[in-house]
Amino acid sequence: MLARICNYAHRREFSSVWRSVSQHAGQRLDLGGIYPPIATPFTQKGSVDYQSLDENLRKYGSIPFRGLVVQGSNGEYPYLTTEERIDVVRRVRAALPTSKLVMAGSGCESTRATIQMSESMASAGADCVLVVTPCFYHGRMNSSALIHHYTQVADSSPIPIVLYNVPANTFLDLPVDAIIQLSQHPNIVGIKDSGGDITRISLIVYKTRSQDFQVLAGSAGFLMAAYSVGAVGGVCALANVLGQQVCELAQLCTSGQWDKAKELQYRLIEPNLAVTRKFGIPALKQAMEWFGYKGGVCRSPLLPLSEVELENLQADFSSNGWL
Amino acid sequence: MLARICNYAHRREFSSVWRSVSQHAGQRLDLGGIYPPIATPFTQKGSVDYQSLDENLRKYGSIPFRGLVVQGSNGEYPYLTTEERIDVVRRVRAALPTSKLVMAGSGCESTRATIQMSESMASAGADCVLVVTPCFYHGRMNSSALIHHYTQVADSSPIPIVLYNVPANTFLDLPVDAIIQLSQHPNIVGIKDSGGDITRISLIVYKTRSQDFQVLAGSAGFLMAAYSVGAVGGVCALANVLGQQVCELAQLCTSGQWDKAKELQYRLIEPNLAVTRKFGIPALKQAMEWFGYKGGVCRSPLLPLSEVELENLQADFSSNGWL
Amino acid sequence: MLARICNYAHRREFSSVWRSVSQHAGQRLDLGGIYPPIATPFTQKGSVDYQSLDENLRKYGSIPFRGLVVQGSNGEYPYLTTEERIDVVRRVRAALPTSKLVMAGSGCESTRATIQMSESMASAGADCVLVVTPCFYHGRMNSSALIHHYTQVADSSPIPIVLYNVPANTFLDLPVDAIIQLSQHPNIVGIKDSGGDITRISLIVYKTRSQDFQVLAGSAGFLMAAYSVGAVGGVCALANVLGQQVCELAQLCTSGQWDKAKELQYRLIEPNLAVTRKFGIPALKQAMEWFGYKGGVCRSPLLPLSEVELENLQADFSSNGWL
Amino acid sequence: MLARICNYAHRREFSSVWRSVSQHAGQRLDLGGIYPPIATPFTQKGSVDYQSLDENLRKYGSIPFRGLVVQGSNGEYPYLTTEERIDVVRRVRAALPTSKLVMAGSGCESTRATIQMSESMASAGADCVLVVTPCFYHGRMNSSALIHHYTQVADSSPIPIVLYNVPANTFLDLPVDAIIQLSQHPNIVGIKDSGGDITRISLIVYKTRSQDFQVLAGSAGFLMAAYSVGAVGGVCALANVLGQQVCELAQLCTSGQWDKAKELQYRLIEPNLAVTRKFGIPALKQAMEWFGYKGGVCRSPLLPLSEVELENLQADFSSNGWL
Repeated sequence: MLARICNYAHRREFSSVWRSVSQHAGQRLDLGGIYPPIATPFTQKGSVDYQSLDENLRKYGSIPFRGLVVQGSNGEYPYLTTEERIDVVRRVRAALPTSKLVMAGSGCESTRATIQMSESMASAGADCVLVVTPCFYHGRMNSSALIHHYTQVADSSPIPIVLYNVPANTFLDLPVDAIIQLSQHPNIVGIKDSGGDITRISLIVYKTRSQDFQVLAGSAGFLMAAYSVGAVGGVCALANVLGQQVCELAQLCTSGQWDKAKELQYRLIEPNLAVTRKFGIPALKQAMEWFGYKGGVCRSPLLPLSEVELENLQADFSSNGWL
Repeated sequence: MLARICNYAHRREFSSVWRSVSQHAGQRLDLGGIYPPIATPFTQKGSVDYQSLDENLRKYGSIPFRGLVVQGSNGEYPYLTTEERIDVVRRVRAALPTSKLVMAGSGCESTRATIQMSESMASAGADCVLVVTPCFYHGRMNSSALIHHYTQVADSSPIPIVLYNVPANTFLDLPVDAIIQLSQHPNIVGIKDSGGDITRISLIVYKTRSQDFQVLAGSAGFLMAAYSVGAVGGVCALANVLGQQVCELAQLCTSGQWDKAKELQYRLIEPNLAVTRKFGIPALKQAMEWFGYKGGVCRSPLLPLSEVELENLQADFSSNGWL
Repeated sequence: MLARICNYAHRREFSSVWRSVSQHAGQRLDLGGIYPPIATPFTQKGSVDYQSLDENLRKYGSIPFRGLVVQGSNGEYPYLTTEERIDVVRRVRAALPTSKLVMAGSGCESTRATIQMSESMASAGADCVLVVTPCFYHGRMNSSALIHHYTQVADSSPIPIVLYNVPANTFLDLPVDAIIQLSQHPNIVGIKDSGGDITRISLIVYKTRSQDFQVLAGSAGFLMAAYSVGAVGGVCALANVLGQQVCELAQLCTSGQWDKAKELQYRLIEPNLAVTRKFGIPALKQAMEWFGYKGGVCRSPLLPLSEVELENLQADFSSNGWL
Repeated sequence: MLARICNYAHRREFSSVWRSVSQHAGQRLDLGGIYPPIATPFTQKGSVDYQSLDENLRKYGSIPFRGLVVQGSNGEYPYLTTEERIDVVRRVRAALPTSKLVMAGSGCESTRATIQMSESMASAGADCVLVVTPCFYHGRMNSSALIHHYTQVADSSPIPIVLYNVPANTFLDLPVDAIIQLSQHPNIVGIKDSGGDITRISLIVYKTRSQDFQVLAGSAGFLMAAYSVGAVGGVCALANVLGQQVCELAQLCTSGQWDKAKELQYRLIEPNLAVTRKFGIPALKQAMEWFGYKGGVCRSPLLPLSEVELENLQADFSSNGWL
């Protein structure tokens, strides 16, 4: 990891000439593999529960993840203060072997805040930052605005950036033409796409492949399909719960065992939907408890699951043989 | 084909006991393969141009399609009279060798009209009918209503039915729970899903696999991904234009040549988007002309492409090496 | 009414010069007032129940409606055959005094079918036709296509046409610029707008007011607000049930008694939502029964209300003092 | 205003018994009137430009506004730091006569941050806070979660709170049943609804009227219609530009001069759309410059208008007689 950091620190000195520097394959940070976008445990009083976080990190250490995403949507980052966001990243970095990447969410609505947060994340030890599309003024967030935003952030970030498209939360799809243009920036190394539109994912892989641009599936529900069309990994909420199984699915895909992969993929779809679109983070944290992790409560206004939701959640795991 | 028809005619006698009859694998109509949802050519005066239709059918005859879909969305069926819809099916059946399936669109808004149209299509020689979700009163089109609708149609149809989910036109997604229940009906043999949600397609395959229920991708854009998760074929607008290539992609998938498949898949995405979501049927018909088919004009209110759209369409084919 | 028909029959002779004919205020068909978009009663076997229809018409005769809309969305027109659509209009015309307008829905997906249906409706005695936006290929239904469609229909229709915008069913909003241009056609006399966007309705009134173009609110829920910004009437599902009250609301608005109007408007909102967006036509027909009309069943796939829905519907009427 | 503050400070002591305290009409903060949701001027370097802000405030002082909204969506609050948000409110309070209300946006995604921000806004001199619906995890933001959120905020806020529904930015509509329940909280005095659904606005007025709950229209486009159904004022982006005219419209409505109001309302629709939905804050700030205010640039990623947009914006003002 040191090498990676030096590499980019070095690049940073020449930030003004980044655009003209020719890129050699291999220079870029290798993102390939599985990442859980980790949940943030809270104490009953609502503070960040660092002890529980450490316990989870210890367990994640034994799973062949490529790294962890800290402050993705599943980390409740919109509910954390700036300080908490940075502290959690620092804590994760400290707990993790250097062979594991720390990808830290640094996206804010304004360009200036995103720049500042990216620098803070780098200082806290992140290997790269995951930058969600700004979306509040979505009517004005066209290709030009988004290209401008990401270029400014990438120009100034001391560590590589990964684009983050999550329309279920932002109601915005980063246009493919913008992605193609941004893929040429030497400090933009990939995208996490959570939309699940496999045609779009295929097109992104295809149109950026001269750039060594890396595509990560944003969910375990379409992980195998994404691998089949050229994605190199996934950031999967479900990996917080069934991390070993998600890594196994990835391994089956990269080794070309598609039939076995398919069988495993099938059984992950319903549990994955349950902890994401269907019931969200409260379900993710509940399922973590069932599988030996510290999930706990969410910050308000996220409420705990109702009884009916809880039963439904359990059924989605048990009917697929996981509980 | 005679065997197939007899098989189902036989079943029909026992229509009241269909539900209790145990199904044997292999009994069902085998849908596996590629189908172009054929366009309907019109004369300058706006009548159905049967001569041009015959020319197209002759050319399609040399391509290894599993069959043709007649009166899918690309056939402008909402612009045809009831008589025209049936006549076109009769004409296609007459022109096609019996080894090729004729899948005829018979969906109408009301259950009674759909039942009647399905019977007419059977009489006109269709092997099976493709039944789009009714959608005008979409607020009431919940699982119960749709299960009721499809069950009534399937109970009375002399030929097997294929469910048809096309949210881009209907703004409705046939719920997965409804599909699972309907898959148990002996006269419902599969679904064409055009939505492109690969997670949903995977789940449908998985949850219906005890029923020998067959899933067809509704577009060439996600054909390979659909095969990878268990679909058995595709109904692809682009197959009207690049039929040989779409069949080749299918063949690469079924023979497990995923890497080659991926390379071909990539090059079909933009042409496919161009003749579907981006520019619709006027573009499909224009592209057909470029590739030696009779496309011609659409019925009003579908207007021809603008100059800019035309250039854009051409670029989507040429930049991928097809023109 | 004879005068009206003659007037337009006369115009029709000069159909080719319509565009250049200057319009005098007053020449146009006066649409001002309230219309129930009548429900179509069916027998238990599913045929059109003309006897029940006649009973309803007799009762509607005593209410100061401007006329009736036949084959609006509430008439289940997508579930009727072409012949049924025309027969029902003929029956209504025969039952109604000539002082009441018959506005007949004639919209189809294709321009040619809409032209033919408009002629049939004129022959069946309709005073004007209500033409819904075609929508199946909604991606291509831009201003140009819609202007082209409506102009062709208006050019050939023997009776005036009223535009019909109902995005809840069509997922399409007829663009304001298209409406402005179409308002200049001498045979297009107004619009029924069911979307409920009061800003849009205001803008339509404002931008078309040099054309004597008449705007009708498409729902009782925003009837008073629509009158306040310049609408001249309403086509209101609720008028099938509470016809006298909706007419009273209109009268309070046209006579400037806004405070009284407001009090009455309030009490109509929930019953109106219940028989439209919330529970649809099955609820409308059920409520008709409670108020002495013949509602009966819907055609499949529209199912009857569940017990819970029924209670909820009743509460929406009783809590507002109507039951 | 002192009286108001004391009143609520007093109430706060009894926060635990708020629910049981009977409310007397007149006790609540009177919100009736027009508010511009003020823009935040920035220097070329991107800092808050307090000098320009002061100039604007001086000019607004001569317009009969009920008060100003600070940190509404038009204030680019998602692009301000916590400190900037509070400082701007303090500055506005200092510049404004005490007869004018300062309504300060304090909404954050988490309940705890919203509570803290509301306290900071009160300390900075705000008379009440405007609390936008949290929305990032919109799939979980049901009535229960939103009622819980707002109740916690209202329980602890030293100043009254106004609910803020702005679906164009949040893709969420605060459910009417939640509003009805929240209207019973003594510290929740009203709602700003920017959705423009006049049926919904009518229903909110009607169902909360036993609570002295006040409804403000969130846009000048439907201001007159909102008054006609019982709203008591408006928070209108256009009031930053045409403040006098928006106030005049409000005065015509409250004095029952509906015909004059209608004529003025018409001419405000297009300029209003132009500075909101069509072109957003960059257009608002540009128009402010034309009318003698300091608008200036937006923070990134909001880009300036293109040439075409600029011309279009100008036309929307000039064609309505304002430029």
